[in-house]
Amino acid sequence: MKVDGSDMRSIWTSAGADGVHWPEVIDQSLLPHELRFLRLESVEDAADAIRHMRVRGAPLIGVTAAYGIALAMRIDPSDGSLDSASRCLTDTRPTAVNLRHSLDRMAAALREAVPDVREALAFDTADRMAEDDVELCRAIGEYGAAILRRLSSERRGAPVRILTHCNAGWLAAVDWGTALAPVYRVHREGLPVHVWVSETRPRNQGAALTAWELLHEGVPHSVIADNASGHLLRTGLADVVFTGTDRTTGGGDVCNKIGTYLKAVAAHDCGIPFYAAVPGPSIDWDLGEGQADAIPIEQRDGREVSEVTGLSRDGRFDSVRVTPRGSPVSNFGFDVTPARLVTGLITDRGVCEATREGLESVYPERRELRSGI
Amino acid sequence: MKVDGSDMRSIWTSAGADGVHWPEVIDQSLLPHELRFLRLESVEDAADAIRHMRVRGAPLIGVTAAYGIALAMRIDPSDGSLDSASRCLTDTRPTAVNLRHSLDRMAAALREAVPDVREALAFDTADRMAEDDVELCRAIGEYGAAILRRLSSERRGAPVRILTHCNAGWLAAVDWGTALAPVYRVHREGLPVHVWVSETRPRNQGAALTAWELLHEGVPHSVIADNASGHLLRTGLADVVFTGTDRTTGGGDVCNKIGTYLKAVAAHDCGIPFYAAVPGPSIDWDLGEGQADAIPIEQRDGREVSEVTGLSRDGRFDSVRVTPRGSPVSNFGFDVTPARLVTGLITDRGVCEATREGLESVYPERRELRSGI
Repeated sequence: MKVDGSDMRSIWTSAGADGVHWPEVIDQSLLPHELRFLRLESVEDAADAIRHMRVRGAPLIGVTAAYGIALAMRIDPSDGSLDSASRCLTDTRPTAVNLRHSLDRMAAALREAVPDVREALAFDTADRMAEDDVELCRAIGEYGAAILRRLSSERRGAPVRILTHCNAGWLAAVDWGTALAPVYRVHREGLPVHVWVSETRPRNQGAALTAWELLHEGVPHSVIADNASGHLLRTGLADVVFTGTDRTTGGGDVCNKIGTYLKAVAAHDCGIPFYAAVPGPSIDWDLGEGQADAIPIEQRDGREVSEVTGLSRDGRFDSVRVTPRGSPVSNFGFDVTPARLVTGLITDRGVCEATREGLESVYPERRELRSGI
Repeated sequence: MKVDGSDMRSIWTSAGADGVHWPEVIDQSLLPHELRFLRLESVEDAADAIRHMRVRGAPLIGVTAAYGIALAMRIDPSDGSLDSASRCLTDTRPTAVNLRHSLDRMAAALREAVPDVREALAFDTADRMAEDDVELCRAIGEYGAAILRRLSSERRGAPVRILTHCNAGWLAAVDWGTALAPVYRVHREGLPVHVWVSETRPRNQGAALTAWELLHEGVPHSVIADNASGHLLRTGLADVVFTGTDRTTGGGDVCNKIGTYLKAVAAHDCGIPFYAAVPGPSIDWDLGEGQADAIPIEQRDGREVSEVTGLSRDGRFDSVRVTPRGSPVSNFGFDVTPARLVTGLITDRGVCEATREGLESVYPERRELRSGI
């Protein structure tokens, strides 16, 4: 998508002075204040970038991990190196399922290949995974756009007001994004929209990343405190809620950034539709109805809550403490929105009900797999 | 309540070197990092303190406004001065109803008195209003404590886990507080409790004020991002929600700090009881069932959202910007929780249903007033 008028992705490869290609990413921990790129030179670089949230978002985590494996293969293409690179990446973030899918796909592609070809094969596979992700997001954009066009016609052309949470835009994927892909699509078509951007404490991915994306793409928006979302829904100031997901169970329960459940339950109470944008690789088919609480909910450093990082008035990056010294802090990273509160899942195969049946209607190969056909 | 082991209130009067008594308050905008007192010397001082949230909380706003009138009477006890002081204070904060009640009570006390006695009468009335508020809060503490004792026995003595929002402690009132009064009471009795403190963006009254109060009173607590409250409720980590109110309608709808509705709707979805602590003066009897949307919802400076103020690592007060330059911001200060989501109202007369009937059962004089008896 657009940054200062030029097209950009969240991850790409480019040749160094030596002609060797390296993966590069945007250091998202510096946004929205500074746009700086980060070259990943080893699997540790990739793991660190994921762990310290220089890259984040379930799809992008998956692709970054794939390049991490490729970088490990460049240094040592042995089975042992493949195993240890996988282990190094597996534990960086526990909640998203894309990471596991991505590592499984890399292992499947490389395991049977002889070590000599593994580096090239790994980069090819990672490149393909990045392109696949772009296609998934483009498809989600297409299917979700139909929802926005319908709402636009119900509103007789007045701006469709979309409430979103965290960052499920192109910075969370490779391009287009998941929850924001439909917004970008209809906006480029000229449909009037307005996005309510929930700041998403404690790390402010909404305020920092979603607002930055929308600003560069020219999409009208307002940043709000997370607390304000209920008021917007209850007083008719939002028409629909679109969020991403870190992992959606085969039963349609949506695990996503902490705070998503609050928006879903308020939307349900107010009769406003709530959709999660769900690319295939974020579905955990192993978990069925009522099994969402098996998803490990990451607990992160309490300083994310007790301190807020941003740009000080004299232009330096700084953190300010907002809690009293001595007060304990808890910091849960994700929550689960039960399927019963979800109007629909916008997948890369179409919009479906948030049920096993709904998901299997758009991924019929899963029904066959389950029935042992 | 306790600060560094000594008893303190949020507002008091003390004699200056000249023997004249002046109202003093804690400058709450500096908490939790610095405890500094502020002497109010004029009605403008009082209005500024309210407007800039150096004092906040519906009950404390009411008492501060009363002293503001008294200060105006000290300088000029004329009818014109009384009117202009009232006007100066009325518009400082639109949502809380205590402010209006307080100004009405002062006007009623002073209007019929001759100017000569107005200063003394105004200070007496303001002092009495402060003491009345302490009594109201003490009563709320008593009635609410019964709820916590019941939950404690259901939990067989394991800590009762109370989720709260914003600051409805003694800093929001004169002493004890509203929603926190029951917590303080049972804690002093030795009942084990744990308070989940929702930070309450954008101004962080939870993280800054509630955590500070609890820390000084020795009450176990953890600060959480506002987004985390749904997860706590859904996964059985909270037993009850207690909040304050800025204005509760005669029909039982609770207007309170933005974000309260999200907690109430999530608690309702999870079968967790939600109580608002409602002192009599925060009830707006003029608004009945379904009329809550007549309450003006204050919209505040967007910089409260785009910037976060706290203590920098080198110990200075600083603000950091978290949004991109150029992104618009919306900042609604309050929301309305419909009565149907409220388990009960903890009033100074007892706990009642959040209905006109429930409220009139504890304030029977209102029923008589309405029936014209």
